[in-house]
Amino acid sequence: MLSTARFRELHRAGDPLLLPNAWDLASARWLVEQGAEVVGTTSLGVAVAAGVEDGTGATLVDTIALSRRLTSAGITVTVDLESGFSEDPVAVAELVAELAGSGVVGVNLEDSSAEGRLVDPARFAAKVAAVAAAAPTLYLNARTDAFWVDPIPAASRAAAATRTRETLDRAQRYLDAGASGVFVPGSLSDGTIAVLADALPAPLNVLAQPGRSLRELGGLGVARVSTGSLLFRAALASLGTVLEDVRRGATPGATALAIPDYATAAALGRDTGAPSPG
Amino acid sequence: MLSTARFRELHRAGDPLLLPNAWDLASARWLVEQGAEVVGTTSLGVAVAAGVEDGTGATLVDTIALSRRLTSAGITVTVDLESGFSEDPVAVAELVAELAGSGVVGVNLEDSSAEGRLVDPARFAAKVAAVAAAAPTLYLNARTDAFWVDPIPAASRAAAATRTRETLDRAQRYLDAGASGVFVPGSLSDGTIAVLADALPAPLNVLAQPGRSLRELGGLGVARVSTGSLLFRAALASLGTVLEDVRRGATPGATALAIPDYATAAALGRDTGAPSPG
Repeated sequence: MLSTARFRELHRAGDPLLLPNAWDLASARWLVEQGAEVVGTTSLGVAVAAGVEDGTGATLVDTIALSRRLTSAGITVTVDLESGFSEDPVAVAELVAELAGSGVVGVNLEDSSAEGRLVDPARFAAKVAAVAAAAPTLYLNARTDAFWVDPIPAASRAAAATRTRETLDRAQRYLDAGASGVFVPGSLSDGTIAVLADALPAPLNVLAQPGRSLRELGGLGVARVSTGSLLFRAALASLGTVLEDVRRGATPGATALAIPDYATAAALGRDTGAPSPG
Repeated sequence: MLSTARFRELHRAGDPLLLPNAWDLASARWLVEQGAEVVGTTSLGVAVAAGVEDGTGATLVDTIALSRRLTSAGITVTVDLESGFSEDPVAVAELVAELAGSGVVGVNLEDSSAEGRLVDPARFAAKVAAVAAAAPTLYLNARTDAFWVDPIPAASRAAAATRTRETLDRAQRYLDAGASGVFVPGSLSDGTIAVLADALPAPLNVLAQPGRSLRELGGLGVARVSTGSLLFRAALASLGTVLEDVRRGATPGATALAIPDYATAAALGRDTGAPSPG
């Protein structure tokens, strides 16, 4: 497992960390096998696997259980905590301190509510401050959701400018309160990403943006690229693709999927308690 | 949910049931959304998600939990029980009766050990008899593993003939003991499939065979085609495919995956307690 210091170092503006998001032990182990040094969790994947709605705080127990399962398996993990599962900064700080104690190197906290509205930035900053005080070495990624809760119409420069101002104002408050970096989810133009990266005195994290490579996002100043729920949704999609291959008699996944054989997949279940040496 | 009687009717030689195998609530719900009337479980997926080795009987608790979760969500399910998690026919029968009571329409039981050896057919037939007596309406799929534990060298007709005889002998014992159908996993030639389907007085279940369509397998007399661990492995593969798309800046999955959007995937977590009307 990586140290929190090493995880922090992996956030390099210009040479971004690609952080894939897992939702269970199998997906996390597979990502590590594929070369990921760190995995994030995706609250959507955890919610759907648990049969509850994402973003509503209903996944606290499942999120903690997944976090424990991954750290116990020797996987370096940063955990998506939605809005912290509480409006009480002390309760959120206790939760994060507990996770940090179990080996988690980072968390995400978001400043929008289950109803999809931005919360008061001062209240969110208080959460950030409490968490930063309780778990000072942990990487606290403050997610600010102006572009997420209210996606901008294509080509609306005025709307983008408003959301950029809102995002920068909120991000600075959270950094002042002790956040380690800022995560701005949503579909963002190159110009917006460059402005945010330039203005923020901390690592900028964005979602993967279709049509822009990791290198291109690095060129805009991004320090971390997350996949969010994308891999979970891709896994669902693969079921339909392969079932159709089976119906037609095509070699499953031949078009785009390098499907591991049984033995390779089964080996994921044999790892116990420690990362594989490779 | 389908009745056991309706599930039984779906096994039609010549017009096979395509039975996709799920490993958690999300994959099962997605398969139902894609049109599956019934889903199976895959012991490999359950094992890897739980961090234990497949085929060793270590997944009893997780298998029961998954089964409950799926039936509670209104999903019609047949459960892979490996070798029944016990060598005591009474214990296996009690487990299956409990599952049948919770709404499971079928189970798979296999006649090979965790070490990959075929067990004594008389002992396995005793398990089948106990289960059939304890859960008489449930569809009991007897899996017989001559082709699975010792895959035949390509083009070895003598080896195929030996395994075919072993398979037919075992299958008939299990059917005499009360099994509903026979599952012969492994890579099988068209000739072998046709001989097995012709000789067996009960529905024949095979794995998806690369290069042969569902219709072609039906033409050989197959009544049910399972995906086994294939979909679970395809889901793992999709992570690598999409991560590479992200690195390169390609539209994720554009080559072969119809990736659902966030809202579609999130809706899977909102279903509670009953199947969707559609």
